[in-house]
Amino acid sequence: MPCYRPIECLFNPKSIAVIGASTREHTVGRDIPENLINGGYTGKLYLVNPKAESILGQPCYKTLSAIPGEVDMIVVIVNSAIVAKVMEEAGQKGVKSAIIITAGFKEVGAEGKALQDEVMAIAEKYDIRIMGPNCLGVINTDKAHMMNASFAPGGMPEKGNIAFISQSGALGAAILDYAKGQNIGFSKFVSMGNKADVTENEILMYLQDDPETDVILLYVEQLSDGQKFIDICREITSDPKKSKPIIAIKSGRTAQGAKAASSHTGSLAGSDEVYNAIFAQSGVIRVDNMDEMFDYALAFSRAPLPKGNRVAIVTNAGGPGIMATDACIVSGLQLATISDEIKNDLRPKLPPTASLANPIDVIGDALADRYEVALKAVMNDDNVDGVICILTPQSTTQELETAKVIVDLGRNAKKPLLSSFIGMVKTAEAVRYLESHGMAHYRFPEGASRSLTKMVDFVKWGERPRTEFKKFQVDKKAAMEVIMKAKAEGRTYLPEVEAFEVFKAYGFPVIKYSLCPDRETAISVADRIGFPVVMKIASPDIVHKVDVGGVKLNLQNKEDVGQAWDVMMEKVKEVQPDAKIWGVNIQEMLPKGGKEVILGVNRDAQFGPLMMFGLGGTYVEVFKDVTFRLAPIRELGAKRMIESIKSYKLLRGYRGEPASDVESISDTLLRLSQLVTDIEEIAELDINPLIVYPEGKGCRVADGRILIKLK
Amino acid sequence: MPCYRPIECLFNPKSIAVIGASTREHTVGRDIPENLINGGYTGKLYLVNPKAESILGQPCYKTLSAIPGEVDMIVVIVNSAIVAKVMEEAGQKGVKSAIIITAGFKEVGAEGKALQDEVMAIAEKYDIRIMGPNCLGVINTDKAHMMNASFAPGGMPEKGNIAFISQSGALGAAILDYAKGQNIGFSKFVSMGNKADVTENEILMYLQDDPETDVILLYVEQLSDGQKFIDICREITSDPKKSKPIIAIKSGRTAQGAKAASSHTGSLAGSDEVYNAIFAQSGVIRVDNMDEMFDYALAFSRAPLPKGNRVAIVTNAGGPGIMATDACIVSGLQLATISDEIKNDLRPKLPPTASLANPIDVIGDALADRYEVALKAVMNDDNVDGVICILTPQSTTQELETAKVIVDLGRNAKKPLLSSFIGMVKTAEAVRYLESHGMAHYRFPEGASRSLTKMVDFVKWGERPRTEFKKFQVDKKAAMEVIMKAKAEGRTYLPEVEAFEVFKAYGFPVIKYSLCPDRETAISVADRIGFPVVMKIASPDIVHKVDVGGVKLNLQNKEDVGQAWDVMMEKVKEVQPDAKIWGVNIQEMLPKGGKEVILGVNRDAQFGPLMMFGLGGTYVEVFKDVTFRLAPIRELGAKRMIESIKSYKLLRGYRGEPASDVESISDTLLRLSQLVTDIEEIAELDINPLIVYPEGKGCRVADGRILIKLK
Repeated sequence: MPCYRPIECLFNPKSIAVIGASTREHTVGRDIPENLINGGYTGKLYLVNPKAESILGQPCYKTLSAIPGEVDMIVVIVNSAIVAKVMEEAGQKGVKSAIIITAGFKEVGAEGKALQDEVMAIAEKYDIRIMGPNCLGVINTDKAHMMNASFAPGGMPEKGNIAFISQSGALGAAILDYAKGQNIGFSKFVSMGNKADVTENEILMYLQDDPETDVILLYVEQLSDGQKFIDICREITSDPKKSKPIIAIKSGRTAQGAKAASSHTGSLAGSDEVYNAIFAQSGVIRVDNMDEMFDYALAFSRAPLPKGNRVAIVTNAGGPGIMATDACIVSGLQLATISDEIKNDLRPKLPPTASLANPIDVIGDALADRYEVALKAVMNDDNVDGVICILTPQSTTQELETAKVIVDLGRNAKKPLLSSFIGMVKTAEAVRYLESHGMAHYRFPEGASRSLTKMVDFVKWGERPRTEFKKFQVDKKAAMEVIMKAKAEGRTYLPEVEAFEVFKAYGFPVIKYSLCPDRETAISVADRIGFPVVMKIASPDIVHKVDVGGVKLNLQNKEDVGQAWDVMMEKVKEVQPDAKIWGVNIQEMLPKGGKEVILGVNRDAQFGPLMMFGLGGTYVEVFKDVTFRLAPIRELGAKRMIESIKSYKLLRGYRGEPASDVESISDTLLRLSQLVTDIEEIAELDINPLIVYPEGKGCRVADGRILIKLK
Repeated sequence: MPCYRPIECLFNPKSIAVIGASTREHTVGRDIPENLINGGYTGKLYLVNPKAESILGQPCYKTLSAIPGEVDMIVVIVNSAIVAKVMEEAGQKGVKSAIIITAGFKEVGAEGKALQDEVMAIAEKYDIRIMGPNCLGVINTDKAHMMNASFAPGGMPEKGNIAFISQSGALGAAILDYAKGQNIGFSKFVSMGNKADVTENEILMYLQDDPETDVILLYVEQLSDGQKFIDICREITSDPKKSKPIIAIKSGRTAQGAKAASSHTGSLAGSDEVYNAIFAQSGVIRVDNMDEMFDYALAFSRAPLPKGNRVAIVTNAGGPGIMATDACIVSGLQLATISDEIKNDLRPKLPPTASLANPIDVIGDALADRYEVALKAVMNDDNVDGVICILTPQSTTQELETAKVIVDLGRNAKKPLLSSFIGMVKTAEAVRYLESHGMAHYRFPEGASRSLTKMVDFVKWGERPRTEFKKFQVDKKAAMEVIMKAKAEGRTYLPEVEAFEVFKAYGFPVIKYSLCPDRETAISVADRIGFPVVMKIASPDIVHKVDVGGVKLNLQNKEDVGQAWDVMMEKVKEVQPDAKIWGVNIQEMLPKGGKEVILGVNRDAQFGPLMMFGLGGTYVEVFKDVTFRLAPIRELGAKRMIESIKSYKLLRGYRGEPASDVESISDTLLRLSQLVTDIEEIAELDINPLIVYPEGKGCRVADGRILIKLK
């Protein structure tokens, strides 16, 4: 777990000074003191304004230094040009933390960045933790603090067990307003702004130990440190004492979105593949929109986790029951089988037209009592892991009474009971009752289905076997020598034979090969390796060997080899006369029966080496069926990488073919992870193809290349 | 266009008699008269109850016959056992239509089905149109009629331009309640129940000409007649005078959902592929859930159609702008380029920190005037086809004033202006204003993005070139002879050589081949066709030829052919000694450079021949990259079939390969469509593979088989 300086001082200061409090209404300088006072801040509040005598009935201080008592935290609203001065004063005063609301820093360009750097230098000198600049503020609804140090309109949010971290202040404010209308409460709300000091990583660590927080929502435009984010989130999402789900939106998924994001925050977002990799590795639930985010947040914050994926649906209408069934099955849940015992128990209590199979249809004229009978049965059934209750308002339907039944049976239950009362007018009171009694309610059944699925996935994630980073015995020195040689020669491209040297040093299963500088060596090496052999041109200048006639397969004897040499040299000289030729690479001709897979690495400027895995061939390119992970990866990570491609079933033995040696691919991926983690010079790397044989028969690196950074 | 008896009499009767009106509250017999009276039904209403003197202040008649005046329509609520009697009475009385609310018919089993048949026979005798039985009723909000002949709770829906057809009464009731809460109005509401007489097809035809209806929503568990549905919906969705979008939910997508549906409605739903095909062919927008349905319905019913796919986004917050951009791009829209002219015009009117690129960010402190400036600019810009306006409620935001700006600029505009005010409390009044002024508003920007996409798709659908069913000159008689011969022999399986005969009769490009009953013929035929050749076993009993050693490729000369014959006969006798052997099929060995595709047909019990197209090979199986259409298909349909597979790019010439002769695949698909439409005996058919050569070089049927129905 990475170690950070603590940031509690931003959430529970005993005293706050607002620097730049204002007398004018509808200004941030007025909204923040108002929010702090109306929110019921339990600490000591000071307002600083050089001109005003008092604001909102509170006396004003001319300067921060003029405040008689200690000040734990300052909230800074003054013009960006004088923030540095305020920080210096704060340092002198012994202030521990600062929320800098003020905009006009890094997000506006070079000049702003210089200002921000200056502020940060002072903060570091005095060890002041900074939230922002350019943020909406921080809210802590804990009764002991009741701190609304933000200019979010609408005042203090309701208390709840959800923490919301947002890189967009405006979106944060909108979400607080939305949540208020939906009876959703928060434990903490943090607007991070420019993340000059505190990033999502420290906030997440803080929230892991926060007893008020059960669920964490995150809106980010870019992550500050991907590897640390993975480490922290893995801990939080699979903490054996108390794991907490993290639900994240990373906006700027598309190139156009990323462009909009970069013009907005002044920072370049990594590619979306990196983010998919990071979220997959960290156990974070990535969502695409706010609807999804709140659907899942509701379930996680209000319902216990299910033990498995078997769902029972209770409904008073067939149609929505069918739609819920579809949604459950599509998202990977299973309909629980209702046992004969339970059916026999239910039969006399429900009308003869009721359907006792799952979905259980209590029929349109059901009053609350029928719902109670059916819900009790499935809530007590060990073959049911979660329950979705659907209600459509019909003439005789008892919406509110049914809601009460749901609260009674679901509130303290050991399994999730989610509900969907479809409607708006007749269902309003009942829905309010459900929401205000802490139940997860959805407008339409699909919301309940997909939320239950995410809960099941989260439980599975928590139960996964834990593996460590495997450390292979390798010859890093030998690998480095190859790379340093190329570097010394000013070359960024390491052709096959050099790449093979590096691979061998790290124990990759490279095929038998030998670099042969001349015709005779080629023939004798071929004889030693054993026919048939493959001949490939070896040149630091030729990247696409096939295109220059630089590959000859299936050479059967010495004559073939000699002849191939002659033809190849002539052809290459013709096509690329300036290419430096090292000779040829003579390789064993691999036996048939293998499958081609591709391994690759691309070092992301921000997050480091991004590993890729996929099957070889055109179709896989067309279907973009590849998977990514940020290195280093653990043993389970390698396994998951392989399993997560759609064409994985081809490796498992499709249509009677033997299963491929997936274990050996996994081993190669782990070695690759170690290689690119060890050697930062590697900018890009391809193994294409890695030939995989049936189980127990291993795999072989048949071709590859490396690109290095010169500095 | 199919021809139906008119059903107006179900929507605008001049007089209605409710048979089974009741004095008891909270009964259907009381709810329906109440809904008719309170809804303001403009015609003459009669209540029939043999015991009551009056109900709801209206006098009661003992029987239908006792009513003095004419009765256009009856609403039947009495017990299922006496519905037939009522119908007979209605026939005598000259009633034109009946809504049968009563349940207990086909949906409860054989006995109920008999009752339903009896009722239908009477209805046909007297030419009475029936809605139901087992339905919620019919609503017509047209001022001239104001007919709420349903027991939906909540009374008359608001008037609007959306028609809703539902196979589930309960869902219909729930949706009416939901819509009421969302300020969504309806033109017509129809609960179809068992569809004993009137189905979605007649209702759709009626709605096509209904001036009150602009958008049609459909919830179905199964369609009554797929081919007619396609014909009708194609007309409605691409009517040059006034096309109307149809948005449909077909529940029971999964096997489990379909099972739930069949236990619910007593009818077997077709496979989901058939439905995907039907919806694709008919121009119907298929959605998976109610959220989507209402998102799209809002846009279509409230905004004009866009001319193209270029969107402008105006926002007061970066984050949601990025999210909207992502959602637009992912769903196939394009961000409009804001011209320098417009930027120059906007610059002095917006603060320097505002972003003038698309999304246009008017910044968090924007009042309504800034929105007005930006929205006016993009609404007037010819490079913009549609606009999404996003608002987050911040301290100074003028929610209501901004809503007014949107209504002013959007209400009578020629391009869609969709909005998303993110929030719930601060935004409530503004959202109500938008909704009640007929604007399409969404909780989150993604709803607006995806709705705009569907509008663009709908416009494209309407603009597609129209093609007809191509009628090839074929030899149907020859094809039938082959099939009748197999039929006469009691065989359902037509092996390759017979399938080829059928294909040839329909002008398919079958490869050169000849059935050779003995070794010598095989050799001489091979010599005539030209070496190399392929030899395949010809047997009505062998389905998987490769598995019994029944395929030999690349036979180079006469000796090869003779030897292959010997080996094959020995092997086949060994593996499948009882197989009747016709000899072998000698075929030309096709040149390389072709791509394998697969064509197939499976006759759906309910909807007829379902055609399939996909690329050959394992990957395509793994990725399930195939497409379906119900035969017959038009020329454009064949083209769309080919283009709609993901791997289509492989046929267009991937990575420098020549493009395949797609035209010739299309031709083969059209011939196949004609074949399976002409000959109903064909139950299943495979062409696997069809080898396609580069453009202009055609394609060849290399293998195939047919399964026929014996009766």
